[in-house]
Amino acid sequence: MELSPIAAIRWSDDEHGVRVLDQRFLPAAEVYRDLHAVDEICDAISTLAVRGAPAIGIAGAMGLALALDDPDVAGNDPLARLEQAAAQIRGTRPTAVNLGWALDRMLVVARSAGARKLARALRDEATRILEEDRAMCRRLGELGAELIADGARVLTHCNTGALATGGIGTALAAVYVAAEQGKRVHVYADETRPLLQGSRLTAWELERARIPVTLLVDGAAAALMGAGLVDACFVGADRIATNGDVANKVGTYGLAIVARRHDVPFYVVAPGSTFDPGTCRGEDIVIEERAADEVRRGFGAATAPDDVDVFNPAFDVTPAELITAIVSDRAIHRPPYAFGQAAA
Amino acid sequence: MELSPIAAIRWSDDEHGVRVLDQRFLPAAEVYRDLHAVDEICDAISTLAVRGAPAIGIAGAMGLALALDDPDVAGNDPLARLEQAAAQIRGTRPTAVNLGWALDRMLVVARSAGARKLARALRDEATRILEEDRAMCRRLGELGAELIADGARVLTHCNTGALATGGIGTALAAVYVAAEQGKRVHVYADETRPLLQGSRLTAWELERARIPVTLLVDGAAAALMGAGLVDACFVGADRIATNGDVANKVGTYGLAIVARRHDVPFYVVAPGSTFDPGTCRGEDIVIEERAADEVRRGFGAATAPDDVDVFNPAFDVTPAELITAIVSDRAIHRPPYAFGQAAA
Repeated sequence: MELSPIAAIRWSDDEHGVRVLDQRFLPAAEVYRDLHAVDEICDAISTLAVRGAPAIGIAGAMGLALALDDPDVAGNDPLARLEQAAAQIRGTRPTAVNLGWALDRMLVVARSAGARKLARALRDEATRILEEDRAMCRRLGELGAELIADGARVLTHCNTGALATGGIGTALAAVYVAAEQGKRVHVYADETRPLLQGSRLTAWELERARIPVTLLVDGAAAALMGAGLVDACFVGADRIATNGDVANKVGTYGLAIVARRHDVPFYVVAPGSTFDPGTCRGEDIVIEERAADEVRRGFGAATAPDDVDVFNPAFDVTPAELITAIVSDRAIHRPPYAFGQAAA
Repeated sequence: MELSPIAAIRWSDDEHGVRVLDQRFLPAAEVYRDLHAVDEICDAISTLAVRGAPAIGIAGAMGLALALDDPDVAGNDPLARLEQAAAQIRGTRPTAVNLGWALDRMLVVARSAGARKLARALRDEATRILEEDRAMCRRLGELGAELIADGARVLTHCNTGALATGGIGTALAAVYVAAEQGKRVHVYADETRPLLQGSRLTAWELERARIPVTLLVDGAAAALMGAGLVDACFVGADRIATNGDVANKVGTYGLAIVARRHDVPFYVVAPGSTFDPGTCRGEDIVIEERAADEVRRGFGAATAPDDVDVFNPAFDVTPAELITAIVSDRAIHRPPYAFGQAAA
């Protein structure tokens, strides 16, 4: 099997911009856009043209490298301009820690680079973040594939594949590598309301990679597990606290509760940048609330009264006790979890 | 508070047809249709223009009364025509027991009525089924309201209100009566993919009745309960086995598992016609699988690859052990459940 050649994010051909696969148009159309300004990067992240915690981190880093030449970024001092742009990018989405982590790395480089070499240093660091992520995806896949038996039926939520990262994904990387190793894997994909990353993105990229996939509404996952059709759940993460609590796409927590009832192993797969040494417990994670119309008028038509009140958190927190193992690019971690600065 | 005057199903003004509120157009438009033939009744039930277990039973009974004058129903002998039409109506949806129950009642009447009085007897029996359901909704509401405290926050799934019945509903009847009694009730409504009965119907009828309602995607229910924002779950049922296992809209089972984890009481409210003395356990209930495109192109536009495989059961089964109480029109039943012929 050949791995999917999707590049969700890379430098544009002229090297003066960031080329992203605009995920809002999938699966109907494969639209690539070149972003040349910090505002465009912020817009792409907040509208979810680029999404997935690792991909957001990469987009933030590459976007910051554009700030020096961006006439809309205020300030004369290059470092002040970069800090202003980093704050703007950081504010787009609060939950995924990868974004802040990548921006912090870029600012450290900016502060130590000489003025003459600043632009080059920023570009090199962003490229390094992208390439490290690609390599991490591969290692995540290799470790995660150890947890997938031949013939396994894997249930997943949201999109954690090539579209969410700089490489072959996080949770889906395990599926890709297992398939590459010749294991037969069948993926059940939760559609993942409200933004349908499962049906729009996961189903699309798995079909492209010729991995068998069956789509279901989020509410059908319990029936599927009850029927004995799931051998393991694999999900990604947007932030992992040091105690192993995991913030991920809304719906993950319920899935973990249902998996526990059916004794289905529940695995979280995430690169090092997702582990947040500054967050001790899930309760400390800020959960982004998104617009009501994502629920009221999902994909064109109004499917609810125009003015109805909506509860629309983008993420939820799964407590560590419901997680069978957390796969980082360094190891398969088992409970009790204790991720310090160096653990992941 | 004045109760919602919605009539989801009644005789048409000329008394030669069945008038239904076509629920496929809600919340955008309130479209009433007069159905004059058995084929039209079958189409309305299978396309979910009429839905909700009690309303389906009423539609089946009223529809059967149309069979005698319907030129498309085969057979010369009136009883043979009725049996043929009943079989056709019965085949539209397999899971809700109310449909078969209502048709059986109509056939018993048909077999005992004289030829001259047959048409009148059928019409009267269908009217009786409608009016009994209306009265049962009221009693369900009064009993169910005992389980709702002042200030309660109630989570519900699918639509179990006036749109699902001949009266004020089943699970939502409890909310309506509690509100009528002056209790403050806040309803959280799962949108209920794939057909969005929660956002399209429940939110619509609660707003109309001026009961505060907040909409959420199905996957957000666990986060809501985790945040301590739910005091009780109230759902309806499509078939209840004698051991208390409940078939209901897909997503109910997962909700019950999540409620148990958070010690949130989980209540099922259903009229007598939903209790099936012929089904001992949930495993024996036939679950309807519906079309893949309900999931693949649920919102008009294609939101998944055109040909992707889909798992789309319309219902799931919640085991009795997860249900705190089952409210019938006779009593609030507590476990262990043992519903015989006369229990409900």
